[in-house]
This record gives sequence, structure tokens and C-alpha cells, in this order.
Amino acid sequence: MTHTKNSSNCIGIVGLGLIGGSLALDLQALGFKVHGLVHRATTATKAKERGLAQVISTDPKILSDCDLIILALPLDQLLKPSQSLLKALPPSAVITDVGSVKAPVLKTWTKLHQRFVASHPMAGNANSGVGAGQIELFKHRPWVATPDTNTDTEALKKVQDLALALSSEWITAEAEMHDQAVALISHLPVLISAALLKTLCNERNPSLLELAKKLASTGFADTTRVGGGNPTLGTGMMENNSSAILRALSSYRWSLEQFEEAMISQHWSQIQAELEKTQTLRPEFLNDKL
Amino acid sequence: MTHTKNSSNCIGIVGLGLIGGSLALDLQALGFKVHGLVHRATTATKAKERGLAQVISTDPKILSDCDLIILALPLDQLLKPSQSLLKALPPSAVITDVGSVKAPVLKTWTKLHQRFVASHPMAGNANSGVGAGQIELFKHRPWVATPDTNTDTEALKKVQDLALALSSEWITAEAEMHDQAVALISHLPVLISAALLKTLCNERNPSLLELAKKLASTGFADTTRVGGGNPTLGTGMMENNSSAILRALSSYRWSLEQFEEAMISQHWSQIQAELEKTQTLRPEFLNDKL
Repeated sequence: MTHTKNSSNCIGIVGLGLIGGSLALDLQALGFKVHGLVHRATTATKAKERGLAQVISTDPKILSDCDLIILALPLDQLLKPSQSLLKALPPSAVITDVGSVKAPVLKTWTKLHQRFVASHPMAGNANSGVGAGQIELFKHRPWVATPDTNTDTEALKKVQDLALALSSEWITAEAEMHDQAVALISHLPVLISAALLKTLCNERNPSLLELAKKLASTGFADTTRVGGGNPTLGTGMMENNSSAILRALSSYRWSLEQFEEAMISQHWSQIQAELEKTQTLRPEFLNDKL
Repeated sequence: MTHTKNSSNCIGIVGLGLIGGSLALDLQALGFKVHGLVHRATTATKAKERGLAQVISTDPKILSDCDLIILALPLDQLLKPSQSLLKALPPSAVITDVGSVKAPVLKTWTKLHQRFVASHPMAGNANSGVGAGQIELFKHRPWVATPDTNTDTEALKKVQDLALALSSEWITAEAEMHDQAVALISHLPVLISAALLKTLCNERNPSLLELAKKLASTGFADTTRVGGGNPTLGTGMMENNSSAILRALSSYRWSLEQFEEAMISQHWSQIQAELEKTQTLRPEFLNDKL
């Protein structure tokens, strides 16, 4: 990283949950000085116990010496930052975020800071909170930045260096394209998976439901995993990327109706041909990753 | 098992694919004499090389000494059995099957054999063919029988003993109830998962598709696993359980539309509440199983 380990400057991380805490652990391991800003005093105590950063405080002033600040906040807080946070961000520092939706973040933050770089390290697991951070969460995972014509080139390079230092795979894309892509491969899966569980919530025949519970197995487990996950994360995705998700959902409903029509019309060879296509397509999305 | 290991009689298995081959291996390990009937001479050679049964042949006459015969055939062959197979089944033998849909099987076979018991050992993996059989495939897995008023009680007991000998969990249910339950927890997941992949097959923007391929990860992998599976198995499910699947699909589409309407109306707290319900429901289907 051009942000030198030997400088007196530090890397600021705002929020020490799963993403912020994991960043803090990795950056410390790489030799960087990390300042962690948290909202609550109790969180600060826990973060200190875990040794997540060298300096941990609820006072935004700890960011004043940082030349790179990562906003590891939930989307709602990221889109409505507090005045105290905004005042504490040095104008010369590079600011980046980790939000899973990029167009609204870029639109908001371009107006708030001249050296803002919108980015999305695509890593995570089912854990959350100050106890969730873990080392090497970002290793070999995509880190997408979504610069536009206003983005400071030098600032973008600094975030790229950060991602590469963490062994992430650096990708740049337009913010709208990013949001549509994650709608298709991440947010739509949550929605269709949750709808499957909701179908069972709606089932009125108790004997049928009991038998279904006995017979459910790995296929059901796989298909419902993301739909049975963190409700707040799921709602946040839908709220903040709704237009891209609704577009993806419209296309999905059409796909589902094609299958339904083929079943009603008993066009089994058409269904066989469609399932051959889906079987062929899937590895193109997953090869060499899992 | 009341079918004694010491009798001169044998257990017949028709078809030595994943299910038939696995049954054959387990039953031999338990000390039973197994006669395996296969369709092709080349399959017989391979089955002999793997030692799947003591007697392996393409000649249905090998079933003449068997007092328990398991039809481990694909659904289409099970529903349209050959005349040579039907002639070779001793009238006194207990006949059972392993088909994943039960109402049409029960309807067909009740007319064909007086000691037929419809059953469905719910085990499997992505493998198929004469090389796929493995030991203990059925251990701790549900084995559902769907008797009706015509079912011979003694024959049913013999199939129950078979299932228990293989350490399966014995369950009985009405055939229609079974078919609706598997539609909900097995066949509908395949359909909605395949429709997700089909949505990506239909995407016309090549840049978006390329980015989506780069960003797809475990959530996408989980949600598309069953929809990217064996096309012939998937088509067979849809063809043979179409009315139960269409009923489940209708309920599913309604669930999806509820989410869509809540998104369009920006009723985020409603979505949050729904996702809390789905998060709570999922473990009820999977607890202590995975």
C-alpha cells in the first residue's frame, strides 16, 4: 500500500461489526495503526477486549490523524451520517465504504466528501456485531469499487491498494451495474428463498405441514438458507436496492411462469431442455470459487 | 427382519442404480442373498465387477425365488413396467418400489400385484448409474410408505422390517399427502431454483451477466444447487407430480407477490416481520437433521 506502514498516520474504521472488525484485525496484522470509532461505550469496551484496534473510542476526533477512513456502517446509517461524523472527517483523507448497494451511497457521499470512493468488499457470513470480526474474511473475495467521473483517481488507487493488501480481487464497475448484478445474484436469491419459507408459513393443513417437516432435507436446506437469514440485512437490501430487485423479480416471475405454462401444457421435453440449460449455466457462475 | 436370513429365499432388486445398488450393498452386508435384475448386459457386467449382488442378470427369471422384490426403477419405467417383468413377479412375493411420487404408483401397481406396497426411501445424492450405489445411504433417512385400504398388512410389515434393518426412519402417510409434502419441500425448491438460473439465462445485457458471474458466491450457489441438478430427474418430478407441484407453485407465486407488493408500497416493516417469520420457521424443518 502507498499508505505507508511507517507514517504517523492511521487508518480509521467507523463501525467494528463483522466487516469493520474483520478489516481492523487484518490491517493490524499487516502492521497498520488502526483507529476504531464505535457508537456505544459498551461496544468500545468489547472491541478493546477483543483488541480490534490500537485506539478505540466513541469520540469521532480519533479520526483526525487518519488519511484513510473506512465507513463500515449499516446502509441506513451510511446514507444518513451524523453531523459529528461528517465534521470529524479530514478533507484530505480518502473516505470509502463497504455498503452492499452503491448508487445511493455514491450519490449521497459525492456531495459530502471530495475524496470519497464507493466500494463493496463482497464477504460476510451469518455473524454480526462486535464479536463477529475474523481474520482473512476478504481473502480471494471480490472487492468492487464503483467510481464515476467525479471520483479522485489518487483516492481510488489508495482503496485499490487497500483491497489488494487484503488479498481481495479488485473489480470496478458502474454503480448502477453493480446494483443490478447484486440484485440478480444476491438479493433476488434472498427474496425467492424467503418466499419458499413463506409458502410453508401460509400452509393451512397441519398434517401436511408436519409431514413436510419430517421429510425436508438437504435440498430444502440449501434453497432456504439465504431466505432464513438475518431479517434486518434482508430488509435493508430490499429497501436500498428496490428498483434493481423489482426489475430482477419481474424477470424471475416470467421465468417461473414459463415453467408453469410448460407444466400445464405437459411440454415435458421443453422442461427437460430448460433444465439442461440451467444445469449448464450454473458452473459458469461458480467455477473455481467454491 | 421377519424375512429370515436363513431361508433359501432371496431379495430381488430390479435396477441397480444409485438406490438399487445402495440397497443391494446394504442388504448383502446384513447377510441377505440378493438377486439383481438389470436391463442391459453391459450394466450386468459392471454390477458384477462391483459385487452389487450375488446373482445379477438381465433375465427376469432370477426373481422367481424371491419373496421380497424392490422395484428400484425410474418413475417412467415403474409406471409402465414391461410384460416380462410382470410375468416374473411371484404372486406370493411382497413387491415394493422406491419412486419419489406415490399416488400414480399406488394406483398403477394396486391393479398389477396384490402384495404391492408403495414406498419411498428418501435418500440420494447427485450420482446415478451402476457406479453410484454406496453403503448406508438410507441410514437415519425417512422411508415413507403410503398404504391404502387395499394394502396387505403383512406385506406392509415386511417392508417396514426392511426399512428398519437399513436404519431408516419409518413413516406412513396417505399417498396424496406424501405427494403434496414432497412437492413443497423437494419439487417446488427445484422449480424455483431452476427459475433463478433461467432468469440469468434470459438476461440480455452481456456486461451485466459478466459482472454477475464474477460476483456470484455461496448464497447464489446454495439457492441454485437443486435447480442446476440432473435435468431428467427434475423433469420426471414435474411430469409425475404435476398437480401437487402446480398447487404448491400457485401458493408460492402468491407469497412472492406479497413481497413484491410490500416492496412497491415501501412497507419495510412488513417485510422485516415476514423475514422474521421465515427465519423462525426454517429450523423447524431442519433441526437435528443436518
